[in-house]
Amino acid sequence: MSITINDIAKEANVSLATVSRVLNDSGYVKDETRKRVEEAIERFNYTPSAIARSLSKNVTSTIGIVVPDITNPFFGEIIKGISEVAEANNLNIILCDSNEDMDKELKAIKTLREQRIRGLIISPTSVENDINSEYLKALNNLGIPVVLVDGHLKYSTFSGVFVDNLTGTYDAIEALIKEGHKDIGIITGRMNSKPAKDRLLGYEKALMMNNIKINKEFILYGDYSIESGYNLTKQLLKKENKPTALFVCNNFMTLGCLKALNEMNMSFPDDISLMSFDKIDVLNFLGMNLSHVEGPSLELGRIGMGLLVDSINDKENSEIKNITLTPELRLKGSEVFIKEKSILK
Amino acid sequence: MSITINDIAKEANVSLATVSRVLNDSGYVKDETRKRVEEAIERFNYTPSAIARSLSKNVTSTIGIVVPDITNPFFGEIIKGISEVAEANNLNIILCDSNEDMDKELKAIKTLREQRIRGLIISPTSVENDINSEYLKALNNLGIPVVLVDGHLKYSTFSGVFVDNLTGTYDAIEALIKEGHKDIGIITGRMNSKPAKDRLLGYEKALMMNNIKINKEFILYGDYSIESGYNLTKQLLKKENKPTALFVCNNFMTLGCLKALNEMNMSFPDDISLMSFDKIDVLNFLGMNLSHVEGPSLELGRIGMGLLVDSINDKENSEIKNITLTPELRLKGSEVFIKEKSILK
Repeated sequence: MSITINDIAKEANVSLATVSRVLNDSGYVKDETRKRVEEAIERFNYTPSAIARSLSKNVTSTIGIVVPDITNPFFGEIIKGISEVAEANNLNIILCDSNEDMDKELKAIKTLREQRIRGLIISPTSVENDINSEYLKALNNLGIPVVLVDGHLKYSTFSGVFVDNLTGTYDAIEALIKEGHKDIGIITGRMNSKPAKDRLLGYEKALMMNNIKINKEFILYGDYSIESGYNLTKQLLKKENKPTALFVCNNFMTLGCLKALNEMNMSFPDDISLMSFDKIDVLNFLGMNLSHVEGPSLELGRIGMGLLVDSINDKENSEIKNITLTPELRLKGSEVFIKEKSILK
Repeated sequence: MSITINDIAKEANVSLATVSRVLNDSGYVKDETRKRVEEAIERFNYTPSAIARSLSKNVTSTIGIVVPDITNPFFGEIIKGISEVAEANNLNIILCDSNEDMDKELKAIKTLREQRIRGLIISPTSVENDINSEYLKALNNLGIPVVLVDGHLKYSTFSGVFVDNLTGTYDAIEALIKEGHKDIGIITGRMNSKPAKDRLLGYEKALMMNNIKINKEFILYGDYSIESGYNLTKQLLKKENKPTALFVCNNFMTLGCLKALNEMNMSFPDDISLMSFDKIDVLNFLGMNLSHVEGPSLELGRIGMGLLVDSINDKENSEIKNITLTPELRLKGSEVFIKEKSILK
């Protein structure tokens, strides 16, 4: 059914080597012969197969990306950053969504392995648990350059670009403390993920450095989903002893938090001071100024893809590079201190 | 460098045919021989290449998706719907983002062609212009099943799943008219796209059927971006003669519109009645009830992928199927009529 280089050679009445020379534009071919081959190619509507090429050269021009959720604008921006650099380097992208699911992520890695990609950028879902070794084995078995973006892998030997989550959160909590807050709640991510862990560490460190006792009642463990942000906000604000400020560890949980606040007829910063890790653009459009820690998502993508291109082009030099970007604190007034009575009214 | 079936055969001291029988679990192989082959496979950490398989069988288990913007939640939901059905059918996905750019879209089609995908789902950017024929040629040349999602292609012979944009918009405008509005503005998409054209037609038809004269001043031509929604809203509301209601033809332009309203110290429905094509989840979370026409995005993806699976499994039966889904009107109060003085104050 499919057209091969053999069919072209037959049609043009030339050798396979001649067709190959025309296709690859290498070596001498008589003009008249070249024309005959090109006409045969045109007639058969023949595309040199990237797959066939990849088998002979053992490379493709495709790289793989695995992210936990393409519908999250944070990863959307990472992908945009990767795409920019990939395009400039004539690399195509195969994108896989692991849906925050470790099994799907392992399956995606195996799928990409079969596609013989040239490199992989992965933002691992959660990585500090028992199956870490199986996971690392799957990545190592790829035998191609791998770059981690945003998520660390314990014991890994891959290059990566990361966010300084501890410092980002530390700065945010310190800003709340400076506004006069002492009772500060936090909704975290899953504790088997290093970024989530580091955000909690930043919170705890800021409290300790300011001689504020850590209240375990104010630490709620979420999973980065809208639902968990919603449920945990309700749980927290129904307590007798409520915090005056709340730090939510990602954009989706903050959306859930806003939904809960709205249902409880509460608003920020009037009823509670609120800060978020990651921005939510829509709030700006609506004139709702939410203070937040802004992860440099576009830069993560650009730098991550830069590291991958370097590794692909210079496979011998397998130096491991780890780059950590410090997120920016964007104060917009939602952290303003509200007298305690307003929260207890 | 890479391990081939030959290496396995040599290592296990068996024929190529025997290795092939073990790999494909077909034909008889002595238990002891099978064990030797499996050990060799394990030792070499050998993965049967999907690419090599695709060359021999002329198929891969990969399908391609091309959408105009993965960061738009509308397409995010379409992709989720596609993924569900793809996964159930053991198909992997290669995703390309055309970035609302016709050239990138053509390039994506050519890239996917080289990957020898088994089928393609595409949501074309804009398709009723001069390069339509080149575009159709590129899709036809793929020689694989193609399914259109959301965007029509004039003169195409592909199956597809679409939204009844005319009826959706007609119903929305009629709801505004029922609330007492006569001066209704519209911010449209690009007029070389059929969905955008149909939305404008629905607007015009609703006005005509209700004996309201069409005011060309109230029709503004956007491009589905946040920026155009922002700029055109400002342009419209700076006019001497303002509409009392505004219909915005997609979610991103509505976000831009909200930004403009906020900057102009206006809000809906107090200062202007507002309706949108496509939902914006965040507004719900914030308790801002925006009436909208809800395109069945998840269903578009599921049904589109269903059509593609049918075509892949039954290539002989090349019946063209066109399915049109009617979007739902979700009235939430933002269309409520406001006395004219309030808009002119």
